[in-house]
Amino acid sequence: MNDLSLATLGEIESLRRTVARLKPGTAALVGSGDDAAVVSAKDSFLVSTDTLVENHDFKLEWSSGFDLGFKSIASNLADIAAMGAKPTVLVVAMVVPASTKISWLESFADGLQAACDQLAPGTAVVGGDLASGDQVVISVTVHGSLEGLAPVLRSGAKVGDVVAVCGPLGKAACGLALLQSGNQDLIRSYDEWVNSQLRPEPPIAEGVVANEAGATAMLDVSDGLIKDLGRLAKASEVTIEIDRKQLAGYEAMLDLPAQSLGANTFDWVLQGGEDHSLLATFPATANLPRSFKAIGKVVAKSNHGVLLDGQPVADSGWDSINGSSE
Amino acid sequence: MNDLSLATLGEIESLRRTVARLKPGTAALVGSGDDAAVVSAKDSFLVSTDTLVENHDFKLEWSSGFDLGFKSIASNLADIAAMGAKPTVLVVAMVVPASTKISWLESFADGLQAACDQLAPGTAVVGGDLASGDQVVISVTVHGSLEGLAPVLRSGAKVGDVVAVCGPLGKAACGLALLQSGNQDLIRSYDEWVNSQLRPEPPIAEGVVANEAGATAMLDVSDGLIKDLGRLAKASEVTIEIDRKQLAGYEAMLDLPAQSLGANTFDWVLQGGEDHSLLATFPATANLPRSFKAIGKVVAKSNHGVLLDGQPVADSGWDSINGSSE
Repeated sequence: MNDLSLATLGEIESLRRTVARLKPGTAALVGSGDDAAVVSAKDSFLVSTDTLVENHDFKLEWSSGFDLGFKSIASNLADIAAMGAKPTVLVVAMVVPASTKISWLESFADGLQAACDQLAPGTAVVGGDLASGDQVVISVTVHGSLEGLAPVLRSGAKVGDVVAVCGPLGKAACGLALLQSGNQDLIRSYDEWVNSQLRPEPPIAEGVVANEAGATAMLDVSDGLIKDLGRLAKASEVTIEIDRKQLAGYEAMLDLPAQSLGANTFDWVLQGGEDHSLLATFPATANLPRSFKAIGKVVAKSNHGVLLDGQPVADSGWDSINGSSE
Repeated sequence: MNDLSLATLGEIESLRRTVARLKPGTAALVGSGDDAAVVSAKDSFLVSTDTLVENHDFKLEWSSGFDLGFKSIASNLADIAAMGAKPTVLVVAMVVPASTKISWLESFADGLQAACDQLAPGTAVVGGDLASGDQVVISVTVHGSLEGLAPVLRSGAKVGDVVAVCGPLGKAACGLALLQSGNQDLIRSYDEWVNSQLRPEPPIAEGVVANEAGATAMLDVSDGLIKDLGRLAKASEVTIEIDRKQLAGYEAMLDLPAQSLGANTFDWVLQGGEDHSLLATFPATANLPRSFKAIGKVVAKSNHGVLLDGQPVADSGWDSINGSSE
């Protein structure tokens, strides 16, 4: 039965089989099956949406259905963590070619569930939509709860704050470079880096931890450290200075695959996207959470840009459509 | 500037210009610009997602950007109304070819805003995502508030209940047939029906009205009266009987274009999708809201199907992928 396609089974039965693999989670009062799900909330909820498009954001030859399910949940959960909040429920809208096998959709659903269970236990996919089209498009909308805290915005960084990161920098970009090399020996040898690209594991629970520790501003590193630092600096109207010495540990993590590929670890650390690590500012007096590592500080109210060892750096992160800077 | 394309401007600037046309609404505490929006809620919220795919759900030669923005909001708002609830905020994830003109995206945003303003004043688009791909995909996630009421599910219909409809039946299907005819004279002459397909106007506020009037089950007619009645009957484990005489008014509304096209009005009324009218059951003792019109009743606890004048009807609605019945 698993060799049947969406075209054979139809949207409704295919969706039913896919949804059947998902667990209900803790926040859904009414789950899938009606026109809308009903979700418990206190005072407010957070909502964010993000889309992955075949051949733009992923290649089916590199990512399994499970990988894509996992990654689409992981990257969305990070948006809630980056607000200093706890994820609750997600809805997933999918477009796939009619020839897509049901077994692929089932693996995709298993990836959705695995990411919920592993990265934010208790979260769940409570609704979805399945349609056919020319290429795979995965649109996830994630929700969260502030748990009585105030949201951590991008705009709250103050002069004197420490800039800190939780999670890797450049690891997913290194994994992408390995996949792009097409060298199967390297891909097998450095599977930890490749897996970081295919199934990122952002530190979701650390979002609330950072909020409780007094984080003044936060976002997740989706488009590269420099680009996302630039966004934080712009929203907060401050200048941020980072220190290359403090990035040495991130570079060291990439040394082996970089040597094999003849690549530059520092480019990955500065410009690599898709790690979905948390990037936050904390008052200098705050106790930095153990999971966060200082990489710089907020140095001025003017300019609103990013300095590396005192020198301005170009805002050279990745724009998913044309590569231009913001 | 309006002749620039997404490829020229980039995702971020294109999204900024599109979002700039949207108003903040009444429920958003933190709007777009951060990793997530923050939305006020009391005890719970509703969430539903739905996707429109180019050449499957719409054709760009028939629908303007404005039309698509309007329709994608309208069809989603109806899912919240069908739960007996009030829509609050929406997020919109879009995939468009990189060659798409910014002026098209701006018209799309204007259509989003117009549908919010006209169909559910106070609702707003509070977040979005823009990506490039081979074909246009519009994924909308809508949220709602129960306003202290219980949700109206599909599963609550009881024997003896009256079955009633609020809004047209078959009108959007008639509009689609007119567009498919390619006859520009007819398309111009019957623009009311064509517009009903391109920019449906479901009776959003009547969802809460039906809930307050005691509706026992409800959904919106997205895939045709018979198919959606079948879903309600199945979820409620009842048999529903509808009466052709009570559908005469719906047929009469389609008479003129049907004569011009040589089409059968009754097929449109029974099987036409995309009207997004509200289909509900009410206790026989309830005062039916003025906007609802009785079309039948819940007759038995067995069978779980739909009868027309005492005869079983095939569940012949539209499956958006392969046309099969549920």
